[in-house]
Amino acid sequence: MAEAGEDARGDWLGPERLLAFSDGVVAIALTLLVLPLAELVPEAGEPGTSGLSILTDNLAAIGSFVLSFAVIARFWAAHHRVFDRARQVSHTLVAVNTAWLFTIVVLPFPTEMIGSFPEDPFTLRFYVGTLFASSALLSVTAVLVRRTLPRDDAQGLRNTAAGGTAVLLLLVLVVTLVAPGLGYWPLLLLFLTSPLERVLGPLVERRLARPPSD
Amino acid sequence: MAEAGEDARGDWLGPERLLAFSDGVVAIALTLLVLPLAELVPEAGEPGTSGLSILTDNLAAIGSFVLSFAVIARFWAAHHRVFDRARQVSHTLVAVNTAWLFTIVVLPFPTEMIGSFPEDPFTLRFYVGTLFASSALLSVTAVLVRRTLPRDDAQGLRNTAAGGTAVLLLLVLVVTLVAPGLGYWPLLLLFLTSPLERVLGPLVERRLARPPSD
Amino acid sequence: MAEAGEDARGDWLGPERLLAFSDGVVAIALTLLVLPLAELVPEAGEPGTSGLSILTDNLAAIGSFVLSFAVIARFWAAHHRVFDRARQVSHTLVAVNTAWLFTIVVLPFPTEMIGSFPEDPFTLRFYVGTLFASSALLSVTAVLVRRTLPRDDAQGLRNTAAGGTAVLLLLVLVVTLVAPGLGYWPLLLLFLTSPLERVLGPLVERRLARPPSD
Amino acid sequence: MAEAGEDARGDWLGPERLLAFSDGVVAIALTLLVLPLAELVPEAGEPGTSGLSILTDNLAAIGSFVLSFAVIARFWAAHHRVFDRARQVSHTLVAVNTAWLFTIVVLPFPTEMIGSFPEDPFTLRFYVGTLFASSALLSVTAVLVRRTLPRDDAQGLRNTAAGGTAVLLLLVLVVTLVAPGLGYWPLLLLFLTSPLERVLGPLVERRLARPPSD
Repeated sequence: MAEAGEDARGDWLGPERLLAFSDGVVAIALTLLVLPLAELVPEAGEPGTSGLSILTDNLAAIGSFVLSFAVIARFWAAHHRVFDRARQVSHTLVAVNTAWLFTIVVLPFPTEMIGSFPEDPFTLRFYVGTLFASSALLSVTAVLVRRTLPRDDAQGLRNTAAGGTAVLLLLVLVVTLVAPGLGYWPLLLLFLTSPLERVLGPLVERRLARPPSD
Repeated sequence: MAEAGEDARGDWLGPERLLAFSDGVVAIALTLLVLPLAELVPEAGEPGTSGLSILTDNLAAIGSFVLSFAVIARFWAAHHRVFDRARQVSHTLVAVNTAWLFTIVVLPFPTEMIGSFPEDPFTLRFYVGTLFASSALLSVTAVLVRRTLPRDDAQGLRNTAAGGTAVLLLLVLVVTLVAPGLGYWPLLLLFLTSPLERVLGPLVERRLARPPSD
Repeated sequence: MAEAGEDARGDWLGPERLLAFSDGVVAIALTLLVLPLAELVPEAGEPGTSGLSILTDNLAAIGSFVLSFAVIARFWAAHHRVFDRARQVSHTLVAVNTAWLFTIVVLPFPTEMIGSFPEDPFTLRFYVGTLFASSALLSVTAVLVRRTLPRDDAQGLRNTAAGGTAVLLLLVLVVTLVAPGLGYWPLLLLFLTSPLERVLGPLVERRLARPPSD
Repeated sequence: MAEAGEDARGDWLGPERLLAFSDGVVAIALTLLVLPLAELVPEAGEPGTSGLSILTDNLAAIGSFVLSFAVIARFWAAHHRVFDRARQVSHTLVAVNTAWLFTIVVLPFPTEMIGSFPEDPFTLRFYVGTLFASSALLSVTAVLVRRTLPRDDAQGLRNTAAGGTAVLLLLVLVVTLVAPGLGYWPLLLLFLTSPLERVLGPLVERRLARPPSD
């Protein structure tokens, strides 16, 4: 399992299995998010509870479920876009992708912690930090994939997407350190990244396009 | 991750990974349905229980498991049929498909609630409402896919299937509001949709075929 | 979702997604088998327990895990072989395959029951009955696939494999009714089917090859 | 399901489904590793606990999660490399691969035991023994795949990777028998296998290349 130095020896693999494996891991992590909700249901209807009260008593758990689903689905869509033109993957790329998958597999853990500790600053930072690490690794992935492409294809790849999200999540992470009282609300900015990218994207792209050499 | 306005820029993706990812999510959601049943088994055979009593004491949980399995399997088959001729997917289609996957991932939650609250009207409406949302999103998906097809292929796609199911589930949802005492029985109509579709299908299809423009 | 009568209209699908979906469901069911074992581990090392005692105290649970793993893996290998030459699938085949997947998804439930009720005759029959239903549906699948093949390919398909297993499981099921005291031991015959098939296979094949018409 | 003697009859299958199935099983086992962590989270924030204390109180569980993730990811990468040039698989190869998948599916069980019995010698040997069995089976797989390749491709396949890891894990297993007090630290050698392989690899390869006949 020697990874180091293999790129130089031209030991490339096709991307098919890496993508199938990544799709599998992400699909499972996404679906496992519902398990903590399913565990909220008592085995037999206890007196004083009803179907509706399960929902209203666990708004933090439900909110974190919906937020994590949306985030993982967006990360997967970005991963899809990044690899759309990749024809081969290096061992370095496999390693970075594995680290990215680690952040996805971990995410259900802080997600469930939010349901139990909705006001806890550490849980907030753990969750946002995991998201930041995930998008940062996706940005590195995008750069590595871009380097394997012929120049024309590389220009077509708008990998700034992942980068913009990583910068935004770094900002949110700083906010959780200085103003944890804002809680999870700053994460809603994630769904406003499109306008930001339309402004910043062309600038970044022009810069990246200049040094296309390795 | 800029989704808005990208269709216009011709930024299409191949459908392969979207389908593999969707298959993965649906397969996992389908298989996770058995987990609440597995949790009914006591860790050690308690006095007074037997293998048979686990089944007879939990008929609501078993019934909801079988019903949800059948429904998800049907939805998957419809999804398969809808995408059978798709050659490319827009970002809008990815977003609608993600929303559909959300309804599939959520379904084990109300399914488990039925086992604990078999008579609860809220649980009934939550379950039927999730099914309706799922089939409605599948109908939107079918329309979006149809628009990407050349005219000949579009006529071959009988996407009225998903639409007929959505209309039926909307009716069942109304029934749960005015007559919750009927419980889950109206859902059995789902398995009678074939004759309905054979009558309505050609009518709807002729209407859809007329304005094939975007 | 009209299934009936569609074969006649030539509404066939490619087998790729059916197989990917089936592989996903089987892979998940296979992996979920370990969850009951993982639940045997106490959250903190309780006094009087050790790592070894978890294994020795739960031999029935571990045995049923290994047996179910072996059986599902064999069924999957048979499924793989049956579909190896399939080029298209009818809606009937999708429906039979869905029923087969149902038996696979259900299997972790009786498997876990064995751990809690190792001597219970009902649990024994429930488990063997599920296995029989699974192999019987796989035999039906094999016949349906064979019908879609050109004559030469059909002769190459040794679908008697699944059939021999189904007959054997029916015999074991009868044994559990008349002599439940034998427990799960008769199932070991499953791993002796190869010689049986080498004798019976050619006979059955010659018979099936004679009337290749529908 | 007759496996024996079929290779001689030329009954080969394509590798696609075997790989898709293996990817699915590995992806699920990898993702299930997080479930014991998720179970550490109390349903409601108990007095005296905080988000941070969940992490600091369960370092053994978190460490075993990270270690098992890294190991499974490496094994998958090695599996990927081994099958990269395979064009067909025999039934023997399917059987060995199934045994390998069994070790992967089992791994979450000893992984969770580490969290509860961090000092227990049996748990240590069970864990290391599972890893050794997994890498040994992967080495057998590599040899079987190599035999199916034309001579040129076989030389290109550096299947010594899996072999080196298996030898190292056998050494670690011996260490756990004579010096269990060292705990899990010797496993860190796994991440130093690259230099070892760069030295041993060419020697082993030359030896294997000499008798390519079977």
